[in-house]
Amino acid sequence: MIKPRTPPGVMELLPREQIAFQRMLDTIRRNYERFGFLPVETPVFELSETLLTKSGGETERQVYFVQSTGALAKEGEGLPELALRFDLTVPLARYVAEHEHELTFPFRRYQIQRVYRGERQQRGRFREFYQCDIDVIGKDALSVRFDAEILAVIHAVFSELGIGDFTIQLNNRKLMRGFFEAQGVTDGEQQALVLREVDKLDKRGADYVRETLTGEGFGMSAEGVDRILDFVAVRSTGHADALARLDALGQGSDTFNQGIAELREVLDLVKALGVPESAYCLNFSIARGLDYYTGTVYETQLDGYPQIGSICSGGRYEDLASHYTKSKLPGVGISIGLTRLFWQLREAGLIAGSDESSVQAMVALMDDGQLAGSLDIARRLRAAGINTEVQMEGRKLAKQFQYASRAGIRFVVLAGEDELARGVVTVKDLLREQQFEVKREELASSLKVELEQARALAGR
Amino acid sequence: MIKPRTPPGVMELLPREQIAFQRMLDTIRRNYERFGFLPVETPVFELSETLLTKSGGETERQVYFVQSTGALAKEGEGLPELALRFDLTVPLARYVAEHEHELTFPFRRYQIQRVYRGERQQRGRFREFYQCDIDVIGKDALSVRFDAEILAVIHAVFSELGIGDFTIQLNNRKLMRGFFEAQGVTDGEQQALVLREVDKLDKRGADYVRETLTGEGFGMSAEGVDRILDFVAVRSTGHADALARLDALGQGSDTFNQGIAELREVLDLVKALGVPESAYCLNFSIARGLDYYTGTVYETQLDGYPQIGSICSGGRYEDLASHYTKSKLPGVGISIGLTRLFWQLREAGLIAGSDESSVQAMVALMDDGQLAGSLDIARRLRAAGINTEVQMEGRKLAKQFQYASRAGIRFVVLAGEDELARGVVTVKDLLREQQFEVKREELASSLKVELEQARALAGR
Repeated sequence: MIKPRTPPGVMELLPREQIAFQRMLDTIRRNYERFGFLPVETPVFELSETLLTKSGGETERQVYFVQSTGALAKEGEGLPELALRFDLTVPLARYVAEHEHELTFPFRRYQIQRVYRGERQQRGRFREFYQCDIDVIGKDALSVRFDAEILAVIHAVFSELGIGDFTIQLNNRKLMRGFFEAQGVTDGEQQALVLREVDKLDKRGADYVRETLTGEGFGMSAEGVDRILDFVAVRSTGHADALARLDALGQGSDTFNQGIAELREVLDLVKALGVPESAYCLNFSIARGLDYYTGTVYETQLDGYPQIGSICSGGRYEDLASHYTKSKLPGVGISIGLTRLFWQLREAGLIAGSDESSVQAMVALMDDGQLAGSLDIARRLRAAGINTEVQMEGRKLAKQFQYASRAGIRFVVLAGEDELARGVVTVKDLLREQQFEVKREELASSLKVELEQARALAGR
Repeated sequence: MIKPRTPPGVMELLPREQIAFQRMLDTIRRNYERFGFLPVETPVFELSETLLTKSGGETERQVYFVQSTGALAKEGEGLPELALRFDLTVPLARYVAEHEHELTFPFRRYQIQRVYRGERQQRGRFREFYQCDIDVIGKDALSVRFDAEILAVIHAVFSELGIGDFTIQLNNRKLMRGFFEAQGVTDGEQQALVLREVDKLDKRGADYVRETLTGEGFGMSAEGVDRILDFVAVRSTGHADALARLDALGQGSDTFNQGIAELREVLDLVKALGVPESAYCLNFSIARGLDYYTGTVYETQLDGYPQIGSICSGGRYEDLASHYTKSKLPGVGISIGLTRLFWQLREAGLIAGSDESSVQAMVALMDDGQLAGSLDIARRLRAAGINTEVQMEGRKLAKQFQYASRAGIRFVVLAGEDELARGVVTVKDLLREQQFEVKREELASSLKVELEQARALAGR
């Protein structure tokens, strides 16, 4: 006998939780599709040589290698032929390069799949987790206008997910680069080091950061450090304020000015797209992966739960697939790590787990002789698009109600001998705690009305 | 520069095909949910000790093992700790055993995920493929009534998939066992060997089979062989005929009689569930995995494409999870191998690849100055639930139309200066090849009506 257990570092859900998780996945997908993004799925494994092109190598990214029984027996030297994807970006790069001549650019794609990382074992760290990505890929060039569209998608997704107020924080890597260069920090790596220190502002305080940056390792002037601290402290409040803060930056290098112009265009279009100004702001401390992003960068925070950190991040990059093609493929995209987000929301008590089931109606069975009648009622409900479960074996009615209630099924339909004779059924609405009788022919349409109302109220 | 390519043995789709594939997945899921099945997802890898319990071992099932960079470096003796699932049945067994006390039985679950097998490289053989499974698991016992429900699900799924007429073929392992025992073939393995010979009937003819079974290896009597050939040739036509053929079998051993009684009950309930009699038949040659199934067995064939083989198979089993728990968990279930089915339908020309896109409308851009107007139109369409793409950069209108047409987008919305001034937009319906003008406020609702009509016509 083997003890049944999942490997460490995975999130496996019970059906009720899985339904809640699936609803979130569906909402994300629906909104991605609403903005015209097309679905892509790639294999869970890629050739190792495809996956491990970037510097840094497999160790840093904690890759999982895959070997068939046969390959394992052969023992071979070198790395195994296959490895599990550790993100959806490398597979996208490979996909776009491989199918370049069959795709139309700009190429809007969404991809919702699981990725794999051999993380150290730790609470809240996952070795398998969902990423929900969108990217727009251009050929040779891609207008900054798409950066605004991406922001509108973030807004649509999190509005409909309904997990609380959120703010999409915007910055621009060109603006940052231009600014740091003006402070004498010209080297990209050096900028990263300075930013890492600045990131400690909340935890260690301004004095600590000032001391470090003016100290031996960095040797910056006190005025320079203050200018940096002022810069990264910028947070806009509202649309007009955001534009005013860009104006207040004045003029600088070409890179600096271009960063400002891009942010201004993004802000203009975000407004035209109808995104409410409470949902976005400038935050000049947002940096993201410094070696990868080159323009707009996004982070999204739940206003009530800043400790959760960014729930949706991304930005603009210069060239997606330089390892696989000579074509220049600039892009902009974001990623939602849904497994971690779901886990965090559950930890914060924001996922009730007592949501309605995907099963909407249950036909109770009062005695075995009425099974054919139950099946016929269920058939009518299903034909009307109502998810319906039938009690296939007679047992105490109280038990059947208890089951429906625990399972989160809203409607219990009863048809005893008397009701069958009168051509009616009794419906118990466990949500509204009401009971009513309805003609058998009208059952499906009346439940449908109730369910449509509930859907409309929930904004789904 | 690395040549971008997928590993051999996977099916990667272009977006248009992916949309068609996704529609099939959605249809299957919708119908599984309609019958009250609950979603379960399990991790892609299981502990090797969990996965490799059954006799036969890993070699036969061509398992893929998974090792993190760290584990690989350690080289360890013995098998790697993790392996990719090769079906959804073993993970279900582990899941139900692990969560036994948190689940309610009978437990109806659906699971739609990819599985992995290190198959030999061959056209039409996949190393990664989707399985779409449902199972009902009972505790201690499970009524044969659920076997009828499963058949009704198969019928609902393939009716809505709309890939042509199909027949669900039914048999019962108890009936077969009882029959073969009466012919003196009492041993299960021997029954399997006889059936394997009988399976050659179509290819080699009756004389060949008769010769083999009466020959040295089997030593059966000529009359016995003829009785077997008569038995496996049974195919019912219609409901009444199916019942008549069961009657014609007469009485036999307890096992034999029980098989008949089960088939009769399944047929009765299938009728009560409203499944049309043209959709199912008895076929006494259907055997399925002989060491696993113990009662009802199903295979489903496309009437017009018998060469594709069974597109949905399954049956009743005695005990799901004996390796992980002492509880007895009988069940009944089916599996649809969608990757292979999609591939076969495409090969047979049954997947057009010219279906409508998931993008329903495209807002064209006549000149850059009207972008804000385009974005506003798109916002209204999206708010009404219409998947809408915006042309973000001005280019020749002919190019924009060509793009929409190739992409399978039905509606192109145009709003030039003149239209904007008059508060209207022009719509080109590329499906009906019509053009009309509509007030800006009425655009979303009028496109919605058209799309609902199309959906109703398509029976979705």
